[in-house]
Amino acid sequence: MRKAVVALSGGLDSATILAMVVHDGYEVHALSFDYGQRHRVELERAEKVSETLGAIEHKVVKVDLSAIGGSALTDDISVPKAAADEPVGDGIPVTYVPARNTIFLSLALAYAETLGSGDIFIGVNALDYSGYPDCRPEYIEAFEKMANLATKAAVEGKVKLTIHTPLISMTKKEIIETGSKLGVDYALTVSCYDPGADGKPCGMCDSCRLRAKGFKEAGLPDPALKTF
Amino acid sequence: MRKAVVALSGGLDSATILAMVVHDGYEVHALSFDYGQRHRVELERAEKVSETLGAIEHKVVKVDLSAIGGSALTDDISVPKAAADEPVGDGIPVTYVPARNTIFLSLALAYAETLGSGDIFIGVNALDYSGYPDCRPEYIEAFEKMANLATKAAVEGKVKLTIHTPLISMTKKEIIETGSKLGVDYALTVSCYDPGADGKPCGMCDSCRLRAKGFKEAGLPDPALKTF
Repeated sequence: MRKAVVALSGGLDSATILAMVVHDGYEVHALSFDYGQRHRVELERAEKVSETLGAIEHKVVKVDLSAIGGSALTDDISVPKAAADEPVGDGIPVTYVPARNTIFLSLALAYAETLGSGDIFIGVNALDYSGYPDCRPEYIEAFEKMANLATKAAVEGKVKLTIHTPLISMTKKEIIETGSKLGVDYALTVSCYDPGADGKPCGMCDSCRLRAKGFKEAGLPDPALKTF
Repeated sequence: MRKAVVALSGGLDSATILAMVVHDGYEVHALSFDYGQRHRVELERAEKVSETLGAIEHKVVKVDLSAIGGSALTDDISVPKAAADEPVGDGIPVTYVPARNTIFLSLALAYAETLGSGDIFIGVNALDYSGYPDCRPEYIEAFEKMANLATKAAVEGKVKLTIHTPLISMTKKEIIETGSKLGVDYALTVSCYDPGADGKPCGMCDSCRLRAKGFKEAGLPDPALKTF
């Protein structure tokens, strides 16, 4: 059975990918990051998502990005909010975490190597997203090229590394529809950048608004909102 | 004053780079990694090297690579040893840490972005080295390309990222000669992969043997050996 590493945040996108990759017949090793994020509740959710959707393993790696700072997600900087129906703005917001996907993909690369896997999946999305540079196709392509020069397994020809981004050209609506068909329980997922201590989403950050827009366009209720 | 991020291990190579970069007039921000390495003594040495050679700051970021494993430097796998005068073998040894330089450079990239710096220095060496794939020029070039697509600062045109590898074509002898001229106190540095609890080098791992060969060829005593 072919092994895959799936970067799992506990949010909507990566839960959908996990379901897709299990459905495609991979043995899934889920990987989450305890990086000093204010929305740490996502790690508990990732664990539940991983169990429910059939990953064989869920690993959490600690990497202290709050020591580096530079983001509203790790520092004492307010997360920008707007009315629930206001579209997400242009430009790269302060929730951008410096080099986050590069750091996450690097750790996924290390993990894949120890597993003998060449397949890394990440839920980047270049349509309904916050404009982060490390979510764009040209960035992913450059990372993949670099990765194939970086590891012992790749250089010795044991694996060819592929960074899979199955959601990159999908809208939030399409992602939700795909996951719903595959039985993803979105009640388990959390997308909010600034949830309450009980995990309750704020409803007003970019991530909450993109999520709400997706459910609205899919004509489905967001089951996570029922919990509160 | 132009800011630089220097990856600092506490070993001979990165101490030399730090001296070179300070000498070149940069404001140096040294960055070390607490990654679960068995030779953790190098972090104390890095702190001393950083102070002595004039870095403006020394940051240590924790990233738990022992959770990922796959290396003699983070796992309970023996570090290979040989007689002190035996040359370092071909092939990639078990001291290889999966994707280590990719992870370190990614964290350096994040740090550089928060500082507004485009200059990252790393002490990779493709001559007197252990054959690690992530020390080769083609790897560094691919990382640099990826980095320029990865961050907000690069994408907005605020910085052009350069991964500087001033030692890449130097022999250990040349590195030691260069550092000695710049006043590096090599007694502070530790290169050993498997030092004693007191920091005493084993004298028999690849890293000890490459270091010994360098001092021998430079016709200099290794001051670190006097300490014991």
